Amino acid sequence: MKQKLDMSGRDAREVRARVRDGKYAGPTAGLASGFAQANLVVLPEEYAFDFLKFCVRNPKPCPVLEVTETGSPEPVVTAPGADLRTDVPKYRVYEHGELVEEPQDILHLWREDLVGFLTGCSFTFEAALLAAGLRIAHVEQGRNVPMYVTTRECVPSGPFAGPMVVSMRPFKAGELPLVVSASGRYPSMHGAPVHIGDSETLGIRDLAEPEFGEPVEIEEGQLPVFWACGVTPQAVAMKAKPPLIITHSPGHMFITDRRHPEYEV
Amino acid sequence: MKQKLDMSGRDAREVRARVRDGKYAGPTAGLASGFAQANLVVLPEEYAFDFLKFCVRNPKPCPVLEVTETGSPEPVVTAPGADLRTDVPKYRVYEHGELVEEPQDILHLWREDLVGFLTGCSFTFEAALLAAGLRIAHVEQGRNVPMYVTTRECVPSGPFAGPMVVSMRPFKAGELPLVVSASGRYPSMHGAPVHIGDSETLGIRDLAEPEFGEPVEIEEGQLPVFWACGVTPQAVAMKAKPPLIITHSPGHMFITDRRHPEYEV
Repeated sequence: MKQKLDMSGRDAREVRARVRDGKYAGPTAGLASGFAQANLVVLPEEYAFDFLKFCVRNPKPCPVLEVTETGSPEPVVTAPGADLRTDVPKYRVYEHGELVEEPQDILHLWREDLVGFLTGCSFTFEAALLAAGLRIAHVEQGRNVPMYVTTRECVPSGPFAGPMVVSMRPFKAGELPLVVSASGRYPSMHGAPVHIGDSETLGIRDLAEPEFGEPVEIEEGQLPVFWACGVTPQAVAMKAKPPLIITHSPGHMFITDRRHPEYEV
Repeated sequence: MKQKLDMSGRDAREVRARVRDGKYAGPTAGLASGFAQANLVVLPEEYAFDFLKFCVRNPKPCPVLEVTETGSPEPVVTAPGADLRTDVPKYRVYEHGELVEEPQDILHLWREDLVGFLTGCSFTFEAALLAAGLRIAHVEQGRNVPMYVTTRECVPSGPFAGPMVVSMRPFKAGELPLVVSASGRYPSMHGAPVHIGDSETLGIRDLAEPEFGEPVEIEEGQLPVFWACGVTPQAVAMKAKPPLIITHSPGHMFITDRRHPEYEV
């Protein structure tokens, strides 16, 4: 925790340098505050067009921040000089859809045909909600945000198909307009909610049993608010079972050099 | 002109049906008002990943609305049932970068390896500017919007590289905040301006000599306001000289079934 607090005021480059040197391998929530974080998916080029097309077809769950040049691990747009093989605290490696490794770097797995995709992360709109004076339940309760697999199908692309995953944060009815407008200003970071209230319409049977993350308590007078979630492209990519896919480990994001307001509309 | 006025109140499907039947082959400004229009680029699949990556890397000039399935001319997301081979009033066909034909349909050119890209068009943010009570010079002067090739390079992708093209609309200093906020709410339609005033910084030598469109008069007290322009991806694609590229003819856009507010953030 101390290590984490120490890094909240540091800039993105410093945190990435520590991660790269193996000095930090934990979750990135709260680190390098002010800087946007990103979801990572690495795929062979053979799958890259279909996957990018999937993202473009489903911009709410899969807002593309950057696509690297084939074979290059450098995200030249969002963090020039960074290295996607070493600068994420923890990775997950899947072969034909099976988790085979959770390493701290992927130098040993890198190939000339790999393409890296960085997509938007909810931390940016959460910062906007907090800045607007709103309280976020899972943050206050010290939990991971609860995430649910919905019955809403994404628009497919090649082998990539599957349901949209949503994250849920409860808010009071009177807070909803501010919640929508504050998060909606960041369309590259999932933007406005996709659904408010009535979780059954999304095919969610029990809010107490999220598929990912942890359940949060919903107070009297609060409604569940659902955002498209960055887990969607990962879930879809894993389901497509390509020979190799590498992602960040949940909560262990890539920290970019871009500040939140750079993605504000 | 009468034909054009007749169609302003029609919905997108009706206008596309007339275009498809060869009853209308003119420009689309002002037609099916309320519906978003789009730029079209059709490329062989071999070039599709690099081109889509180019668009994602340069979202201001190249905001992707839809990518069709390889071989399918149907834009299932923005206009289900439409046909990109017949529903654009006029096309331009380039072979190895040379304009070879300007047909009213591309049925004779369609192949199983072609991919269609629809990108955002300024008509949507212009509607927002007009709705905000602002006067748009080129509309009032009955001209095409002036467009300029800048010295600002796009982020390249594979064979796709080149300068950003901008469109220019003059506004008074006091109107600028409204101009920025009203257009900025449509990031999929070029969004907020990329530059205000001082055209030399963009490498524009003479506002009276646009590379595309027609010059407009700038009144005393007005500043030139520049938006990233949908001509950029076409210019870049033509420069890459693929064996075949098909685009809409300037001003002869594809009209989608999506209403402007669907793209509002």
